[in-house]
Amino acid sequence: MSVKSNSLDFFFNPKTVAIIGASESLKFGYTMTNYLLKSSFKTYPVNISKEKIFGYKAYKRISDIPEQIELAIIIVPNENVLEAIKDCIKSNVKGIIIETAGFAETGIEKYVQIQHEIEEIAKTANIRIIGPNCVGITNFNNNFTTTDVEFDKLLEGGKISIIAQSGVLGNVVVDWASSQKVAFAKSITFGNKVDVDEIDMLEYLENDPYTKVITLYLEGVKKGRKLIEILKRVTKPVIVLKNGRSKAGFNAIKSHTGSIAGDDKIYDAIFKQLPGVFRVDNFYEMFDIAQIFATQPLPNGKNVAIITASGSLGSLACDQIEQIGLNLAPLKKSTIEQMKKDSPNWTSLRNPIDLGPSVFATFKPALTALMNDENVHAVLYIFAVPQKPLETFSLTMIPQFRLINKLVTKFKKPVTICVFGSRWTLDYLLEESPKYNIPIMTRTDHALKGLKMMYDFKAIKERKI
Amino acid sequence: MSVKSNSLDFFFNPKTVAIIGASESLKFGYTMTNYLLKSSFKTYPVNISKEKIFGYKAYKRISDIPEQIELAIIIVPNENVLEAIKDCIKSNVKGIIIETAGFAETGIEKYVQIQHEIEEIAKTANIRIIGPNCVGITNFNNNFTTTDVEFDKLLEGGKISIIAQSGVLGNVVVDWASSQKVAFAKSITFGNKVDVDEIDMLEYLENDPYTKVITLYLEGVKKGRKLIEILKRVTKPVIVLKNGRSKAGFNAIKSHTGSIAGDDKIYDAIFKQLPGVFRVDNFYEMFDIAQIFATQPLPNGKNVAIITASGSLGSLACDQIEQIGLNLAPLKKSTIEQMKKDSPNWTSLRNPIDLGPSVFATFKPALTALMNDENVHAVLYIFAVPQKPLETFSLTMIPQFRLINKLVTKFKKPVTICVFGSRWTLDYLLEESPKYNIPIMTRTDHALKGLKMMYDFKAIKERKI
Repeated sequence: MSVKSNSLDFFFNPKTVAIIGASESLKFGYTMTNYLLKSSFKTYPVNISKEKIFGYKAYKRISDIPEQIELAIIIVPNENVLEAIKDCIKSNVKGIIIETAGFAETGIEKYVQIQHEIEEIAKTANIRIIGPNCVGITNFNNNFTTTDVEFDKLLEGGKISIIAQSGVLGNVVVDWASSQKVAFAKSITFGNKVDVDEIDMLEYLENDPYTKVITLYLEGVKKGRKLIEILKRVTKPVIVLKNGRSKAGFNAIKSHTGSIAGDDKIYDAIFKQLPGVFRVDNFYEMFDIAQIFATQPLPNGKNVAIITASGSLGSLACDQIEQIGLNLAPLKKSTIEQMKKDSPNWTSLRNPIDLGPSVFATFKPALTALMNDENVHAVLYIFAVPQKPLETFSLTMIPQFRLINKLVTKFKKPVTICVFGSRWTLDYLLEESPKYNIPIMTRTDHALKGLKMMYDFKAIKERKI
Repeated sequence: MSVKSNSLDFFFNPKTVAIIGASESLKFGYTMTNYLLKSSFKTYPVNISKEKIFGYKAYKRISDIPEQIELAIIIVPNENVLEAIKDCIKSNVKGIIIETAGFAETGIEKYVQIQHEIEEIAKTANIRIIGPNCVGITNFNNNFTTTDVEFDKLLEGGKISIIAQSGVLGNVVVDWASSQKVAFAKSITFGNKVDVDEIDMLEYLENDPYTKVITLYLEGVKKGRKLIEILKRVTKPVIVLKNGRSKAGFNAIKSHTGSIAGDDKIYDAIFKQLPGVFRVDNFYEMFDIAQIFATQPLPNGKNVAIITASGSLGSLACDQIEQIGLNLAPLKKSTIEQMKKDSPNWTSLRNPIDLGPSVFATFKPALTALMNDENVHAVLYIFAVPQKPLETFSLTMIPQFRLINKLVTKFKKPVTICVFGSRWTLDYLLEESPKYNIPIMTRTDHALKGLKMMYDFKAIKERKI
């Protein structure tokens, strides 16, 4: 059933769109309808009982629209979905996104049955269907979205794409990530996946020039063997979050999207064997790691140097380095000598490099010495400066960012910044970071796990060559 | 050497203060000096070469000050510290906080030796010393601080106190926590601890009426047996973060505060046997958990009910419930029937309760039914609503908070909110939460670990009675 990936382009860049069930009332779909009608995407509202929606002429049925529709978004109540789909097929629509919930996930026989009928239609009709029980897609490079996310708050298109099952989550993830300056290429949620699923989307994103890193949130897997096949073929890093590790979680999935989780241990074992597939524990970890993959070069080894203004956070990160399977870089004597020239006598210049409050003045020579040291394969900069001195010294941060960017490019070694401090501090650093392509996060364990996965990914790549 | 805990009050509420090494230049201590001189705390700047500091008359030596000084804060360079201490002793100062770094932690013989001399002085003189290599204390109930934290940004005094070794960290933790609406009672950092240490401070905080929860960041332990003794006696929950789990971390501590970490596995085993002592992995976990202890009643059992708008996040949390050793509460039939009355047909009313986008309308009946169910001992509310609808519906959140507060008080069951969403969403909820005494965090694993520790703490309390 797999089709050429380009054939799904109409979901991401449709020439014409119909919103079936469009309405002005403050409920699910309100923001999307308002946004699409006012956007440059040719959008037609379909509503059985309204003349106008947000001032635009509404059509009773999709067949009343005087133009051929490529993509239909369905948000009518669950009992009316089947009829809407049949209308779409009659009108030769290429793709449907069914956002309405209330099908197999309810466990109610009547709605399970409707979902089966939709599945049958998808198999026989010349149409592709995303959903039901989802929020569809967002394309961050042309600002097309079928979600309730507001585009004026979003970043420009980035290099990370996300494939997720859940609807609400699809919206919120994008929302959250935007406020963390995690820039996406494409996001896709497919809910109960009667047709389009993670396999189609992995294939699509593998060929998508905008996507450098794929993040995949999995609940149930319907075609396990096919999933493994495609995961083997994908050459981009795939960061997977899969729930259902516990019996309770397993049951919860069933009542959420109506799919069967499968034995989690089997998937865990399979993921471990797949080169380029990395399993994570939660969404925060997922995007922090994706951000490192998206912005930093792959490290040539496992030796990490730590620079910080807080010896405590430095030594806590050392514990994590060992747990995660990296090494604390043994610095060359010349590196330490180099750093000593510019540092007060009380700074600790073994690795981790604790610059203390002198960090504003001594960061530049310290980072330069570390990046020049061939024993160092990656640098973790743990930023821990109280808000007050930072407000005073904040202008010194731009040269630091510029320096990091320059040295990363020159030496092809990854640098990650972890921030421990006030919201003001984090916001200040986040705001500036995208310009310099620097991944900023709060947790050192995420940064170090990311560096370890990057190292493993590089090892796999090289074995392939 | 232990003294009556009240005898350390002069550190937290000094009648008179001298800042030895006070200066107007933009370096360590600038913010503190400026703040204390302008505060209601009677503060005298001491500087060998300046006439005035921030417009206030400066004294060449502490003995020149025309008033008896209770507390001296030393921020002169490391080579001048010993002389400053001797001056303080001559002037009958009660307590000294040495913030200057550059002693045993450098590993340089000369500075290690100076620290030894300070230690000897502390043993014989009638004086208590905090430091060196620290930022001293903050009392959030009278706004006295010896740190560079800015008080106008801080919250009112709360119920959590922190004892930490590291200086920079002491500043930043308070900074960070304030911006997360984590309200502190007292914070203490003691760096290389030549005299005052975690044992003194645990004793002090056990008797401090403002402190309900103690958080303890430990690097090296010098008096292991005494620490264990006091930890056994403390009746308040103590949340411990200790580094040095790895060899690399162990070595890093040595070069940070010059103390010996001790065998981590022994401490791990000891902590596990100590009732009321809970070990955590990082600062984020530490304060999220402290926040639950500080605001919520102890649960009567291990059964957790989850309410959410995202079935995915709900099922991920189910996996964590099992891992952490809690139960997913088996709801009574009547509870489910009660919730059904007010919910659309597509919501999933098994536990986890997935209210989907109907959460604004159906939260009230759902939470009320759950709190009334004796099978439910605690509730986790995973808030996952995109920013856009939330902005529209945000006013519905205040009644939700009010309801939570009312039901927590009535049923004495803890409720914790985990937020997944944009920074705007988190900020909005955080801003309102303190008024209603609701712990808000981003990570469900922290919330669940906190509930588990609260359950264990209650079990210990009850065994004692």
